[in-house]
Amino acid sequence: MKHEQLLSLMRQMTLQEKIAQLMQLAGPFFEGAEQDGQITGPMEAMGITKENVCDTGSALGVTGAREVIAVQEAHMRNNRLGIPLLFMADIVHGFKTIFPVPLAIGCSWDMKLAEKSAEIAAKEASVSGVHVTFAPMVDLVRDPRWGRVMESTGEDPYLNSEFARAFVRGFQGDSLDDTDRVAACVKHFAAYGAGEGGRDYNTVDMSERQRREYYLPAYKAALDEGCEMVMTSFNTVDGIPATGNKALMRDLLREEWGFEGVLISDWGAVKEMIPHGVAADEAEAALKAIQAGVDIEMMTPCYVNHLEALVAQGLVEEALIDESVLRILTLKAKLGLFEQPHRGADVAREQEIVYCEEHRQAAYELATKSIVLLKNDVVLPLQKTQKVALIGPFAQNGDILGPWSWLGSKDDAVQLYDGMKGHVEPSELLTAQGCEIESITSAMLEEALQVAAQADVIVLALGEHSDMSGEAGSRANIRLPEAQLELIAKLKPLNKPMVAILFNGRPLDLHGVMDQTDAVLEAWFPGSEGGRAIADILYGDINPSAKLTMSFPYSVGQVPVYYNRFNTGRPQGAPDAQVRYVSQYLDIPNEPLLPFGFGLSYTTYAYDELVVSSDEMTVNQPVSVSVRVTNQGPAAGEETVQLYIRDVAGEVVRPLLELKAFEKVSLQPGESKTITFTIDESQLRYYHSDLSFTSDLGDFIGYVGPNSVDLMSFAFKLTK
Amino acid sequence: MKHEQLLSLMRQMTLQEKIAQLMQLAGPFFEGAEQDGQITGPMEAMGITKENVCDTGSALGVTGAREVIAVQEAHMRNNRLGIPLLFMADIVHGFKTIFPVPLAIGCSWDMKLAEKSAEIAAKEASVSGVHVTFAPMVDLVRDPRWGRVMESTGEDPYLNSEFARAFVRGFQGDSLDDTDRVAACVKHFAAYGAGEGGRDYNTVDMSERQRREYYLPAYKAALDEGCEMVMTSFNTVDGIPATGNKALMRDLLREEWGFEGVLISDWGAVKEMIPHGVAADEAEAALKAIQAGVDIEMMTPCYVNHLEALVAQGLVEEALIDESVLRILTLKAKLGLFEQPHRGADVAREQEIVYCEEHRQAAYELATKSIVLLKNDVVLPLQKTQKVALIGPFAQNGDILGPWSWLGSKDDAVQLYDGMKGHVEPSELLTAQGCEIESITSAMLEEALQVAAQADVIVLALGEHSDMSGEAGSRANIRLPEAQLELIAKLKPLNKPMVAILFNGRPLDLHGVMDQTDAVLEAWFPGSEGGRAIADILYGDINPSAKLTMSFPYSVGQVPVYYNRFNTGRPQGAPDAQVRYVSQYLDIPNEPLLPFGFGLSYTTYAYDELVVSSDEMTVNQPVSVSVRVTNQGPAAGEETVQLYIRDVAGEVVRPLLELKAFEKVSLQPGESKTITFTIDESQLRYYHSDLSFTSDLGDFIGYVGPNSVDLMSFAFKLTK
Repeated sequence: MKHEQLLSLMRQMTLQEKIAQLMQLAGPFFEGAEQDGQITGPMEAMGITKENVCDTGSALGVTGAREVIAVQEAHMRNNRLGIPLLFMADIVHGFKTIFPVPLAIGCSWDMKLAEKSAEIAAKEASVSGVHVTFAPMVDLVRDPRWGRVMESTGEDPYLNSEFARAFVRGFQGDSLDDTDRVAACVKHFAAYGAGEGGRDYNTVDMSERQRREYYLPAYKAALDEGCEMVMTSFNTVDGIPATGNKALMRDLLREEWGFEGVLISDWGAVKEMIPHGVAADEAEAALKAIQAGVDIEMMTPCYVNHLEALVAQGLVEEALIDESVLRILTLKAKLGLFEQPHRGADVAREQEIVYCEEHRQAAYELATKSIVLLKNDVVLPLQKTQKVALIGPFAQNGDILGPWSWLGSKDDAVQLYDGMKGHVEPSELLTAQGCEIESITSAMLEEALQVAAQADVIVLALGEHSDMSGEAGSRANIRLPEAQLELIAKLKPLNKPMVAILFNGRPLDLHGVMDQTDAVLEAWFPGSEGGRAIADILYGDINPSAKLTMSFPYSVGQVPVYYNRFNTGRPQGAPDAQVRYVSQYLDIPNEPLLPFGFGLSYTTYAYDELVVSSDEMTVNQPVSVSVRVTNQGPAAGEETVQLYIRDVAGEVVRPLLELKAFEKVSLQPGESKTITFTIDESQLRYYHSDLSFTSDLGDFIGYVGPNSVDLMSFAFKLTK
Repeated sequence: MKHEQLLSLMRQMTLQEKIAQLMQLAGPFFEGAEQDGQITGPMEAMGITKENVCDTGSALGVTGAREVIAVQEAHMRNNRLGIPLLFMADIVHGFKTIFPVPLAIGCSWDMKLAEKSAEIAAKEASVSGVHVTFAPMVDLVRDPRWGRVMESTGEDPYLNSEFARAFVRGFQGDSLDDTDRVAACVKHFAAYGAGEGGRDYNTVDMSERQRREYYLPAYKAALDEGCEMVMTSFNTVDGIPATGNKALMRDLLREEWGFEGVLISDWGAVKEMIPHGVAADEAEAALKAIQAGVDIEMMTPCYVNHLEALVAQGLVEEALIDESVLRILTLKAKLGLFEQPHRGADVAREQEIVYCEEHRQAAYELATKSIVLLKNDVVLPLQKTQKVALIGPFAQNGDILGPWSWLGSKDDAVQLYDGMKGHVEPSELLTAQGCEIESITSAMLEEALQVAAQADVIVLALGEHSDMSGEAGSRANIRLPEAQLELIAKLKPLNKPMVAILFNGRPLDLHGVMDQTDAVLEAWFPGSEGGRAIADILYGDINPSAKLTMSFPYSVGQVPVYYNRFNTGRPQGAPDAQVRYVSQYLDIPNEPLLPFGFGLSYTTYAYDELVVSSDEMTVNQPVSVSVRVTNQGPAAGEETVQLYIRDVAGEVVRPLLELKAFEKVSLQPGESKTITFTIDESQLRYYHSDLSFTSDLGDFIGYVGPNSVDLMSFAFKLTK
């Protein structure tokens, strides 16, 4: 449908129809939904009418081709003008084929596979009737107490931006005409990851400069890639909840960034302005949200119950509502819903595509690239001849899909035990649960000790259950549960090689694990094919290559800890530093236990022959730097070569390191490759105190290496 | 000396003499100082000359009448124009008579005694030759990992402001003509208390609105009270180190606030702009500091070595230097130094006044008001007939003065054992060390168990040694050291009443103490008379009345935690709150272990008869609220009645509670008093998003009670 037709359609809508178009309701409200009929109570509680539901613009969380088609058909019958519903859902890291959680995907540093994962999620979602996914989540994260760090790709604005683009490309493809794609909705705008104390939904406060430099780039990158929608965050931004924040939404997002797509509130976030304390009632919440430019109100009735009166009172111009309606209709048109109200939904094809072998293979592949080897004291890979004791609450446990995998099946997930079965004789693979995730009994411990005593090597499958992270999954204690630490401690005296596999959604304080075991594999929540991917790494069929994209703190008392921190005026370890009067903790190091960019492999890579094209560059003359990377070990592998810079003296303080580029390189044993990076002036820009985004002439240091700590450096100057 | 004379004097100064006037050096640089002659090396290291020293404007840390007089006499001989030196020193919570640390003083809520403590410190300092003290420190603090929380009065902007005023009044009196007073220097401007991760000197980032609303008021209050000087902080403010921050210093402090006094850098902070990364070298550091308006550079030579060239290059106008020189000369004139270069310094009177009985009595009195009773399960006060086992590393330990008590004598401090001796027969007071502060041996434990076994009650003297807090005393773990927790755990099975006395400079995670003992007394670092004050409380001669001014976190994973937090859009415990999807930790409560304003007493106070004058107020018509407080218990006591408000719906989110007033009231057993507070419109103002400081019409809730949790509430409206 063309713009003129959409305008004409809109002109036929009554004000109340327009307002209902701005409402989003969950499945059970709709005729044709499986839970149809359950909704009278909730409808009454929200104060909305059957007519409102018939006029509603979009549905949330309804999936499955049959159900979506039924709801859509009923809706178009019931809707006076026959306007189709938009079906939206949280398809975050896979639809039914579940990929590793985004934080794990981040550790792959692999944009192609990240894009592929989104493409497959889109394909499964679309054939199941979904038009829009509430993804990617690109919130920058520095606090592992926050449960939603698992949903982010990590702590770096550049890497997060690259992933934001990759996910948007994967979801949306080149055009929404392709019914195997869905519209993406980047979230949570803005800075939701910076909630104070790591508590979900909590207050966020920072300077605008910091927000622009670190927190905003990934959202912007998603929009630059053409992301169709934006979701507001639950937190305050400079004292005002994002959902009612005109400066953020209208001035920055709409005006400055030129975003013309649909802006949706997060679940209930419009009405939550009341408890936030910036709206006295639903009417004021509706007023602030529509003034801020929020097009769709998700799951609360402030718009539908109050906008009409606000227009009548002259507090809201109808033009504001028209703008929002037109954006929603435009998205519907882009998705082709006026012509194909069921779009990709196809009951037969759904059977064929969803969770198909090819998709599961892609999930497997991404899992193998996402699992980070944190420690390996000559234990891994395992030998097929070793008798293995697989012990721990995740030994035979399908809870490895992670949060936001509501359509995935834990029962179908490849458990670690099943993955390992393919590698060894059944008689050589012993197993015991050892403990529950949060408790242990002496009988369990006894059994574990007995099983372990018979083995050559102990593989511990440990972690947090998926509800311990994810939305509202904040924790003040980020160590493994005591029961599991006890299990490790009790097995330690057997003096057998111990390998710990970790299933979790956040960086943990790994004291009691890193120091007690011989090898540690961070599997995260690895998705549908997790057990297979881990097993193939354990047995060396796959050489691990992933690298952390979020620092693992030394302890929770060190939080926040992140690699791109500032030097301070009294840095530790400076040549003239005093013993006491430096910026440090008395009782722990400043450095995280495991740094950004870190990850081991079954081979070793040597870096040498650092060559810089010049020690000076200008705006028009970039500098290039090359480094030779050699696989010195016994296994073929993939290395992620990282380029960082440091601006020595800025107008404002600059980070010790900023990731500016990286390249993944495959190397056979003995093979060398030379990697070349180009640094141009645009990479040296930053936000100055007047918020101008420019570079400064002067000294810079470049760094190249395998992680954010082990680096070769070179100096260069930006001159006129 | 009059302004015209000062101008004339300045006109006689060479540029280099003017620049040296802006330098501050420590005692050893000066002829006549006790360490005189040791300084050639450091002078060379700084690149400064003997002439520079002769022209220097001020000396740091030289005290004692004899030495100050000697240095001043030599200096005036050596200085071409005979300009006297200013003598400055960190006199933070007492000179030689050491008062409780400021965080403890905060808990007294007693402005009169706080003022008195500063008055006595000034008197002792002045007679010992000091002209300026680097106090009060008024940084708002929310992170107990930071070691300097002991130097602040706590987490509340209003209370901190009241203390800032009290300390300035105490130091400066009505006029600096009074040579028993010294000039005050408020610090650390600005927001030094908000260092990320609680690490000293670390990055600070927040919105300007938050800075103005919470962090700046106490500095402003000190200036409103006439504070002569301001010290820059080590941290960045919006990306720029405070010491080179023109927006902060020139635009806000000088222009907006109209501060005309002397602005001094913190120790080395000018040169620290180089490691901060905003200055390439000393010259650029000097340039940024002088442009920001820093008058005195403390202990680095950027000004003295580079300002002349910067003037020659036309980068700095000499007028800028003249401004600074004139401010310094003006302060010298205010202090009367041109007429009385030795001012208060008096060797004979020094003997008489410093650490005199009257001063120690004042320190005792303030200690009794600063010690907070955190728990008391019918154990305290002790009976003189009970046999007591006093056990722990602070049983006989003079390290109770706390950080920033460099002139105090630990040897002379009244230890707890000595304080208790006066209350019981020697045979009834047994003692054992139990453990070191950070270690324990089985012999120590054995002795402690033996001693405890003979007693009726165990008094544990526990804590952190003074270096574990204070400047650069950041800690990631804020529990008592493991050795002390073990001591408690081992004594617990004796099943005797246990009282824990805590000596420390920060809120601690008190798990292992609060739950294991029957009574807990937070003594902080109580100062010279600490042991006497604690003992008098233990035996009931004094009824404790102090209340916490900084929340004690549940655990370090909860930091930051403070009472005046925001509600969020998904508060815990709301009527319609979901079980999971609220702002909370899964594993610990949101609430601190001990809240702001909390403290017990040996009696109980009942609050009733809340009467509000009206449920509406206007700009011209305040509302008043009264409450009856009755001492229902057996002991006379002093209660601090607290008034909080909440703005129900603001333009920006407003705290759940804001302390607006308090009153201390003395009550005999059975006595009642009615306390009346007036709330006027000025108390309802806050910083809006445009930084205007105004109030909003609408609903408010008022709260009255004994702490920030146990409150009676009343609603009122601000109307036109």
